[in-house]
Amino acid sequence: MSTKDQNATALRAEEVIALVNQILQPLSAERVSLNDAVGRVLREPVCAPEDQPPFDRSAMDGFAVRLDDSGLEFRMVDEIRAGDWKPRELQRGETIRISTGGALPGDNLQVVMKEDVQADGAAIRIAQRRKSRNIRFRGEDAHAGQVLVEPGTTLQPGTLALLATIGQAMPLVTRIPRVLHLATGNEIVAPEQTPQRGQIRDSNSILVRAFLKHWHVEPEQQRLPEDEAVAKAESGKRKAEIENLDLLLISGGASVGEHDFTRRLLEHFGFEILASKTNLRPGKPLIVARRGNAIAFGLPGNPLAHFVCLNLFVRVALDGFSGRGPSNIFQRGTLATTLESDRNARETFWPARHESHAGRIQLAPLRWSSSGDLTSLSMANALVRVMPGAADLDAGAEVEFVPTIC
Amino acid sequence: MSTKDQNATALRAEEVIALVNQILQPLSAERVSLNDAVGRVLREPVCAPEDQPPFDRSAMDGFAVRLDDSGLEFRMVDEIRAGDWKPRELQRGETIRISTGGALPGDNLQVVMKEDVQADGAAIRIAQRRKSRNIRFRGEDAHAGQVLVEPGTTLQPGTLALLATIGQAMPLVTRIPRVLHLATGNEIVAPEQTPQRGQIRDSNSILVRAFLKHWHVEPEQQRLPEDEAVAKAESGKRKAEIENLDLLLISGGASVGEHDFTRRLLEHFGFEILASKTNLRPGKPLIVARRGNAIAFGLPGNPLAHFVCLNLFVRVALDGFSGRGPSNIFQRGTLATTLESDRNARETFWPARHESHAGRIQLAPLRWSSSGDLTSLSMANALVRVMPGAADLDAGAEVEFVPTIC
Repeated sequence: MSTKDQNATALRAEEVIALVNQILQPLSAERVSLNDAVGRVLREPVCAPEDQPPFDRSAMDGFAVRLDDSGLEFRMVDEIRAGDWKPRELQRGETIRISTGGALPGDNLQVVMKEDVQADGAAIRIAQRRKSRNIRFRGEDAHAGQVLVEPGTTLQPGTLALLATIGQAMPLVTRIPRVLHLATGNEIVAPEQTPQRGQIRDSNSILVRAFLKHWHVEPEQQRLPEDEAVAKAESGKRKAEIENLDLLLISGGASVGEHDFTRRLLEHFGFEILASKTNLRPGKPLIVARRGNAIAFGLPGNPLAHFVCLNLFVRVALDGFSGRGPSNIFQRGTLATTLESDRNARETFWPARHESHAGRIQLAPLRWSSSGDLTSLSMANALVRVMPGAADLDAGAEVEFVPTIC
Repeated sequence: MSTKDQNATALRAEEVIALVNQILQPLSAERVSLNDAVGRVLREPVCAPEDQPPFDRSAMDGFAVRLDDSGLEFRMVDEIRAGDWKPRELQRGETIRISTGGALPGDNLQVVMKEDVQADGAAIRIAQRRKSRNIRFRGEDAHAGQVLVEPGTTLQPGTLALLATIGQAMPLVTRIPRVLHLATGNEIVAPEQTPQRGQIRDSNSILVRAFLKHWHVEPEQQRLPEDEAVAKAESGKRKAEIENLDLLLISGGASVGEHDFTRRLLEHFGFEILASKTNLRPGKPLIVARRGNAIAFGLPGNPLAHFVCLNLFVRVALDGFSGRGPSNIFQRGTLATTLESDRNARETFWPARHESHAGRIQLAPLRWSSSGDLTSLSMANALVRVMPGAADLDAGAEVEFVPTIC
């Protein structure tokens, strides 16, 4: 009676992750403007093209005097504002008023902060002469040629500010993956439609779309016709698109039949099936397939299984494509309340909320009535891993968890 | 000699945060599609319009039989797939093949999983009859009218999937704030330009733009003319825009003169100055101003001060606008290495990296040569708070920190 693949081995989560990491190469790179580079991954080392700062700058509003001129009375001979470039040799008894950021006119100078000075026209009297030179020296932050940002770095606001400072206005970053998402399931209608009896609304399409935004992906999305021959014919119209994609996601309906349909469709698209079953709860009937450097996932239809497979496996694929390098998605924390794991034979990923209290990460498991229960997903920002056969876990127990994409 | 405002009190970070929280109201709300709602803040309670699930659904691929029919031999009289709606009263000895997600045809039934059944055409023999009914019952996840998502919730992928399921296809969320960013500074050139001697490239504009993306804001950005009269005349052309904005950011140059220029410009735009000095390092010459529910910040010119003021204060303003409610931005962790705080008289926010190890949050302070040093900003994901006059902090010391927007 069973239609499941008898040869398939049920993989553990770490085996699926290792499989995905093993087959993926980072995608090619492209140059983009700084405005488009937020959250993208750098693919070349960025070096300082010149010393940083490029010249000695005043760190204060004040008065520049010779270091070897220990007098207290000075005559103001010029003014240097930020942006000015006025090299000159200061004589003893001479001073130049200088603004914060202004370029020092020469070497061996000191800036006396204006709070320590009394001025009467050009006549300047220093009330207090301190040790600090109040100068940001050329090359103090970085020397020309020094690597400032390593490849694989995610470009966050501070990193982009540094790139702007050194004139790297078009950084080389990984291109955004091309993703196609196909949704199956006879019982599914769009969220804005009123389901007939026996039907439910499609929640997986928005889940997939919102999840992919984290990697700047706007996927193509399509409902798949119910008839296999029609589906194959329809997809034929997308041939060029399907041949060019990096990631194909097929959301199954809920039945085993649809699992097989997904499998045959992937083979029709030229993918090789690498895995078709896990020991996960939820997420058992997961399909992983490859075609060159492209990867496909056949995701089990129920929403919680979708959530788990996206946050565990599709995420690893997208991080692999990005060039960020393989990352460990598992973190550790302690349970805030009991988790009734029920000695389940499968490796369970339990929806939870993680928060930090006094420097420690705590996890509160959420109510989970069934694998179709979306109410817990609404609040979840973590999945707690419970090993196969584990006894109930008490509050305070140390656990592993995966922070979910928010 | 001093041009600073003698009446101004130097505020502590928490005083600035309290000031911002006190003056801001959440912005108005708008309805957007689920695709546009990722990361936005919900502004009304969302209730279940009907029981969830809306009907008894099979949790397995299997065979529905009467609960009170303890026989082992059955005759298959129909098939129900997901999406079908076929109510009927099963007779003893009858069974209906049913797919996962399929609607049960009536009450008081049980689904026997297909793995426990041998089938020969319409003749079905149950090899093993277990206790589990394998049904997701109507209302099991939520009852009609029950609040599923509270106002103030940030809409993450799982929350959006729930909204889709219950047909809430146009959620009410806070509108995106209107932001204008003006940059001053005589010494500043664009990142793609080659600075003349004495000039530096503008890094604050990209820093501000990348930071604001976290709140989906694409700010208007403009370089401000150096001449005050011209600047006021130029801004007159933007009158309608300036009157409608929610947040005005002015990046100062580095000099005290530019601080005063910012102040007069804000007053010219009709803002009331609420604060003009902090005891922060960096971030001392910060201006906070209001006009109705609009807020303005005059940010000190140097990049690290920008970074600190954005992550401490502008962030609180944007969260206040969002309707997320006042959040505590300070977390706790332990230092991974020594932090040489130097008994500085000011409240210092030190760039650092936070990471979690075995469930504890650790902070590694970054090298910080000066308040203009962007190399540390490139790596920073945290700002460690060091209180005024604090002695050097040893590795293992517990500290407060602010996670920065990445």
